[in-house]
Amino acid sequence: MAANLAYLNTRDLEFIIQEWLPTERVFSYPKFEGYYSKEDIKSVFEPYRKMCKELVEPANNESETHPCTFANGKVTTPPSFGGLFHKLLIGTCNEMMAAASPEFMPYVGLTTGATELIVEFGDEHLKEMFLPKLFDGTWAGTMCLTEPTAGSDVGDILSKAYPTDNPRIYNIKGNKIFITGGDNDFTENIIHLYLARVEGAREGTGGISLFVVPKFWVNEDGSLEDNDVQTTGIEHKLGQHGSVTASLAMGENGKCRGWLIGDPPDENGKAQGMAQMFKCMNYARLGTGLLGLACLANAGYNAREYCKERIQGRLLTDPKGPRMTLINHEDIKRTLLLIKSHVEAMRGMVHKTYFMFDVRKYDPDPEVRQDAIDFIEVATPMTKAYPTDEAWTLIGEAIQAYGGYGYCEEYPVAQIARDVKIYSIWEGTNYIQALDFIGRKWTMKKGTVYAKFVQQIRDFHAANKDTAGFEREFELLGKGIEALDSMMMSVGGFMGSGKISLMPTFARRILTANSMVFGAWVLLEMALIADKRIKELGQDHYDYNFYYGKVLSATFFCKNVLPQAFCIAEIVKEGDESVLQIPIESFDY
Amino acid sequence: MAANLAYLNTRDLEFIIQEWLPTERVFSYPKFEGYYSKEDIKSVFEPYRKMCKELVEPANNESETHPCTFANGKVTTPPSFGGLFHKLLIGTCNEMMAAASPEFMPYVGLTTGATELIVEFGDEHLKEMFLPKLFDGTWAGTMCLTEPTAGSDVGDILSKAYPTDNPRIYNIKGNKIFITGGDNDFTENIIHLYLARVEGAREGTGGISLFVVPKFWVNEDGSLEDNDVQTTGIEHKLGQHGSVTASLAMGENGKCRGWLIGDPPDENGKAQGMAQMFKCMNYARLGTGLLGLACLANAGYNAREYCKERIQGRLLTDPKGPRMTLINHEDIKRTLLLIKSHVEAMRGMVHKTYFMFDVRKYDPDPEVRQDAIDFIEVATPMTKAYPTDEAWTLIGEAIQAYGGYGYCEEYPVAQIARDVKIYSIWEGTNYIQALDFIGRKWTMKKGTVYAKFVQQIRDFHAANKDTAGFEREFELLGKGIEALDSMMMSVGGFMGSGKISLMPTFARRILTANSMVFGAWVLLEMALIADKRIKELGQDHYDYNFYYGKVLSATFFCKNVLPQAFCIAEIVKEGDESVLQIPIESFDY
Repeated sequence: MAANLAYLNTRDLEFIIQEWLPTERVFSYPKFEGYYSKEDIKSVFEPYRKMCKELVEPANNESETHPCTFANGKVTTPPSFGGLFHKLLIGTCNEMMAAASPEFMPYVGLTTGATELIVEFGDEHLKEMFLPKLFDGTWAGTMCLTEPTAGSDVGDILSKAYPTDNPRIYNIKGNKIFITGGDNDFTENIIHLYLARVEGAREGTGGISLFVVPKFWVNEDGSLEDNDVQTTGIEHKLGQHGSVTASLAMGENGKCRGWLIGDPPDENGKAQGMAQMFKCMNYARLGTGLLGLACLANAGYNAREYCKERIQGRLLTDPKGPRMTLINHEDIKRTLLLIKSHVEAMRGMVHKTYFMFDVRKYDPDPEVRQDAIDFIEVATPMTKAYPTDEAWTLIGEAIQAYGGYGYCEEYPVAQIARDVKIYSIWEGTNYIQALDFIGRKWTMKKGTVYAKFVQQIRDFHAANKDTAGFEREFELLGKGIEALDSMMMSVGGFMGSGKISLMPTFARRILTANSMVFGAWVLLEMALIADKRIKELGQDHYDYNFYYGKVLSATFFCKNVLPQAFCIAEIVKEGDESVLQIPIESFDY
Repeated sequence: MAANLAYLNTRDLEFIIQEWLPTERVFSYPKFEGYYSKEDIKSVFEPYRKMCKELVEPANNESETHPCTFANGKVTTPPSFGGLFHKLLIGTCNEMMAAASPEFMPYVGLTTGATELIVEFGDEHLKEMFLPKLFDGTWAGTMCLTEPTAGSDVGDILSKAYPTDNPRIYNIKGNKIFITGGDNDFTENIIHLYLARVEGAREGTGGISLFVVPKFWVNEDGSLEDNDVQTTGIEHKLGQHGSVTASLAMGENGKCRGWLIGDPPDENGKAQGMAQMFKCMNYARLGTGLLGLACLANAGYNAREYCKERIQGRLLTDPKGPRMTLINHEDIKRTLLLIKSHVEAMRGMVHKTYFMFDVRKYDPDPEVRQDAIDFIEVATPMTKAYPTDEAWTLIGEAIQAYGGYGYCEEYPVAQIARDVKIYSIWEGTNYIQALDFIGRKWTMKKGTVYAKFVQQIRDFHAANKDTAGFEREFELLGKGIEALDSMMMSVGGFMGSGKISLMPTFARRILTANSMVFGAWVLLEMALIADKRIKELGQDHYDYNFYYGKVLSATFFCKNVLPQAFCIAEIVKEGDESVLQIPIESFDY
């Protein structure tokens, strides 16, 4: 397989931290004071990039040559994954690692998620028992939500928990499917964060509790014993061949136990599990968007490098001229700029939101913290769905840029396409994200949370719309803001006239259009900074091509992508009802 | 693997032949008179559907369990393919077979293509030597164009042909790659239709000749002997695992011979090969569009059947109500109608064009034949590119409709996605199609050929725009026609102001927008017929759901898809130049 070329340099990530986001605020919070400053960022990125390049990336090829297998009840993973897991768990999981190996990342991500839940909600005893070995990578973690009959509708799970003599320990019985990292052969134990209903608790999501169900029960002396957790199979998937997707049977022999997190259901049968899970869900959804973005970025980098080398055809404007490398052809440049501008929009959206997570947690001012919380609520469904929806189509364009070799597994882009498709489905399908956006985020606190988000774009637009050289871009951003208003009006009209079902019919497209405006906003914020730097530094500066590329990313996105948001607003306004009118039987033809 | 459910019924295909296209014209041509009539169509379709279902479809699963392999210079294909090839070669390759097995189809399609070239341009001697065994499937055929250094720019091939004592036989030397069906283990011989340059012929496409280069040389007595054609490897591809993609080395030992088709290069070094190849190219490109359409249709059928069975969640409008099958959820219905309306638009585009192939060949009136030729010229790049571009994204949506199981190879939709991606690349990439459309088809005969095509849409619009119940649809089609005019004006403006490079920059989007208007046109033609039938037959008729579905396909497409063509026209008008401005170096970040 041709070398995967993820992240030859980290210039754009440095720009985000050092030049765009006001990260000095975060570095000055008491928690971080005296450690790093913004200026140290390059010295953090470089060794990390090197580690991803030299350790993680080679392992990604192994996931194809040695995919996960399941035989005699045992799971085998690509041999290199075990060593990596121990080396890397303490690192922040970020875009570089996701690009270097989308198939190894889930083990890290899920373990991080499980660890966070215990940190946030576990008592001291649970923390002492589980955290040290989760932190050092001796054990791995998972999230066990989906069951054979309950995926998006998690309230319908059948897993049951029965009280024992110890009020914090329950007997667990149930079946889970699609458990990412649900088994492996490289950690001593696997700590499942497990949703189940305590006997007698209410139906639906309100009656679900969260348990720690280790694969091997941890005795008080630290020794391990079988906990009746069986792996019944793994999925043969389109991609992610190095990442185990397991079916688990808990308590088949009546001997599976789990620790309850928090309190048992109250006298009304109301339990705490879903609220606990939701607390960590925004972060997990943002992380999924990052995975999609990382795959797309990686596809773009690889396509670019190929197109620099491959000679094919002549320019249309010079048909008798010399044969050219692909990257000189207009349609290839269009494809690469299409991908580049999307990557930078998504990266901006995701990082602006990550920044708000730090503000939310550490800012001394409660009002500032509340603003960050509100920002995260609105931004999360967009940062999860937009990168993971668009990546499939755009990676298809990266394949197209290669020509026939893009279709060959010899080059990495085919595997990237296979790996990326799951992200639009897991961690809440993108339809769930869209319903969350329109059903919850639009209406939260009587609409003020969403209005505050859009107001930031309005303010930015008002303050900068006359910037020389960007007049047209801001005119288009203004039309984007109008499109946001228009879609809300249209949906209001549906609701007012009793056509409630039109809301879910248009939900995914409305989320996409909102994301495009969000993307244009962050791109223009960055472009204004880049434009200023160009004027300060001049065209001969070594950073000129980087800054000029940032400006053109914004211009291209505003003039070629953002108009699709206006188009969606028109389509929503049209309010076509054919989806509601069509009889199920008509799909038979 | 879950059963592939292609083509449970052929109702829409019957509608196309019996109710929409004026096929009575074709059936009445002298060539076909006295054979079938329109009314016999069902009796032709049904056994063919059954054969595809019972023979071809099961073989498609085998292409995953027994993919093509290459060892010790020998290719092995899925075991069932050999038997099928002999049974099926005489049949017309059509959408049903392509849906039943996209991976077996190429063997049939390429053999058909090679056979046609010999029928069209071979002399009696070549026809006698090769056609009988190509027709009965004893031998297979290929098209050998691409070389390691020449793909889209076929004029740069390095294969050489050297005269021998026999003026019709040449010694052949060269390397070919990406040869679909380039080797197999189920036919006695493989007949390569091979592009090479006769020593001394001119450079570029004008100097290329076409040869018949059999894997085993056919002696006059019919016996076979080695012809120095070696298979040097096969590609490991994203999909199409049952379809061999071979690299071939001809004449490594100086012993490969080929028959020249037609005349040797003239005194100016001008050869006939490309003109011969082009003669059959429209048909091959149309066939590729059909392959893309068939994969999309098949993904839609399978998703629909899954969504009828799978229970998940409750309706947003009835959150306390019963759990529902997926097909009752608005976003799933939207997805299925999105796919259905695209499939019917593409099927209409492709079949209207196939119809013109019959008119072109058999109509007694030369003016009618010329109109058909002109229609085919304009329609071909759209029928090739539009289905094969959109299928990737839309099959991604079919995966999404399943949820997590769509990502599992246990269900057929993942394989369909992997199989379909090649069609946007082969038979002329979709960028090549777009350049052909704008560069050649727009300007052909001073623009009159394209104008005649659009005039048919204008006439249809003018004649029907006041049809009750379709007023809005026709208003949108009218805007679509305006969009076509607008894009042509914009490109005219680019050329007039010397910005020629903007033409290739927008070429693919312009082709897409034209295809959307073409699609809306054929859908509305069919919808008007269906609407009339509904009024004749009433809602209780067993065909009501079929006809009502046809009407809603048109409505949905006009109101949800066609507006994207208006959006593209606006984007082209904007004329953004950032693709031309960006320095190659800016892609490094």
